Parts: sequence; structure tokens; C-alpha cells
Amino acid sequence: MTTKSAATDETQIRQRIESWAKALRAKDLDGLMHHYAQDVLAFDLAPPLEYKGAAAYRKNWADWFPSFQGPVGYEIRDLNITRGGDVAFCRSLNRITGARTNGEKTDVWMRATVGFRKIGGKWIIIHEHFSVPINMATFKAALDLKP
Amino acid sequence: MTTKSAATDETQIRQRIESWAKALRAKDLDGLMHHYAQDVLAFDLAPPLEYKGAAAYRKNWADWFPSFQGPVGYEIRDLNITRGGDVAFCRSLNRITGARTNGEKTDVWMRATVGFRKIGGKWIIIHEHFSVPINMATFKAALDLKP
Repeated sequence: MTTKSAATDETQIRQRIESWAKALRAKDLDGLMHHYAQDVLAFDLAPPLEYKGAAAYRKNWADWFPSFQGPVGYEIRDLNITRGGDVAFCRSLNRITGARTNGEKTDVWMRATVGFRKIGGKWIIIHEHFSVPINMATFKAALDLKP
Repeated sequence: MTTKSAATDETQIRQRIESWAKALRAKDLDGLMHHYAQDVLAFDLAPPLEYKGAAAYRKNWADWFPSFQGPVGYEIRDLNITRGGDVAFCRSLNRITGARTNGEKTDVWMRATVGFRKIGGKWIIIHEHFSVPINMATFKAALDLKP
């Protein structure tokens, strides 16, 4: 593996993540799902424990998008990518902002870990894990933490 | 990369995870930390958003272990490993059980994603992400979910 190909792969993964975030902000469901493997396994912010497969995960996003009045605000900070061969994972702190259809304002930082496999020359998401920490005294989500 | 070396690497990673879990159950802090890189970055169940480095993460485990009366019950289910070259990540559903020193009983399933790099011939943990989902109506942790 040359240094050049490693740099190219990391660039490709960063571009995929930015393309994914762009689709998310625009609530572009097809554009978003384009990045996932059919057998993606995802751990999302809300229950269930896990989503198995792109169809189940797509329904989750389809249900979530209409809860925002307009586009979703989405920022990705401290993105770090680790790659070996055709496998990579990245982690970052992601911020969701926006006005919800129920009148509430959302502004929350969460933790993101995303696993990729290079399939047919493209970096595809095969695993995703989003979460917020839990206050262990109250069992409430810690939604006000800042990086 | 031959099929044999891939199998050997996956076997080594499974053995590392089992060794890690054994140390956790025994509240063996040195045995546990032996599996982490010095620059590990971890997203744990409780705040803060992230732990940067083995020293900070060690303190977290050192504070948590005494909250159990005896050994920690720890089960790892549906472990799935993805590896490319000297990088791997795995995901699973992990169950923590046990009697706490405050008199409570703990029995909770969580989601686990762990990132490894092979350093000096050994698979070392460089990233870890543990979480439980949040009920978005109450913002409470969903601690009663079963796989």
C-alpha cells in the first residue's frame, strides 16, 4: 500500500461522509441511502437496539426527516479515519440542529462511529453507531454536552 | 492476504475480546488496560462525550468497578468482526449484570463498537463506543431492551 493510495482512500472516505451529510441536511432519502450496504447494521440514537438491513434503516430516516420543519442542521467535528486495506472506520462528534415540527428547537452533540468497506471501488457504510451519553444518576440523556 | 491469515487474525481478535471481557468481569484494571492503545479515544455509556487517552479512560474504569459488590456480569452476543490489513472493527450487543454497592441490581443490554489496530503483532483497541438508546419522548435511557 503506497502513501499515495492511502491518501486517496482517506480523501474518498471524507468525500463520502460529506456527501452523506449533504443528503441528510437536505432530507434526501435516496441520496442518503445510496451510501449504505444492503446488510448495514446500525445502532441509532433511539430504540430499537439495532437496525438490521437497509430497508429497516431507511424507514427510520424516513420517519425522522419530517420531524424537522426545514432542512436539518448537521455539523461533523474532529473526524478521524482509520483504514486498512478495504476496511475503514471513523469517529467524530456530530451536532444536530433545527426547528422541529412540534415547535421545539433541537441542538444536540452526539458521538458517531461509522464502519466502511470498499465494495466495487466505492466506500460503503456497513455499520453505524450514534449515541448520546446517559446520566447514571437520573438515567436521562445528557443532551447539553459540548465538545 | 490468504484465507488462513484472515482466519488467524479474526481468531486473534476474538481472543483479545474474550481476554478483555475476562479482565472486566474480574475488575482487573491492569489486565483490562493492557488491551488499549495509549491514545485510545472512547465514547462510554456515561458522560463526558469522549475520553481521550488511556489515563483518562483508566480512571473511568477504576471509578466504575467499585460500584459492583462482586464480579461484573458481562456477556457479548452477536459479535461481528470486519478486518482489512492491520485494521479491524467489531460490533456486538453486550449485557452488564450484577449487584451494585448501592443495593440496586443492574441488568442492561447495550450496543458496542470497538476499533482495533494491529501494533507489534497484537490487536490493540484504539477506539470504543458503548451506548444505550434514548427514548425520544422522555429523553430517558431505554434500559429494558432485549436483543
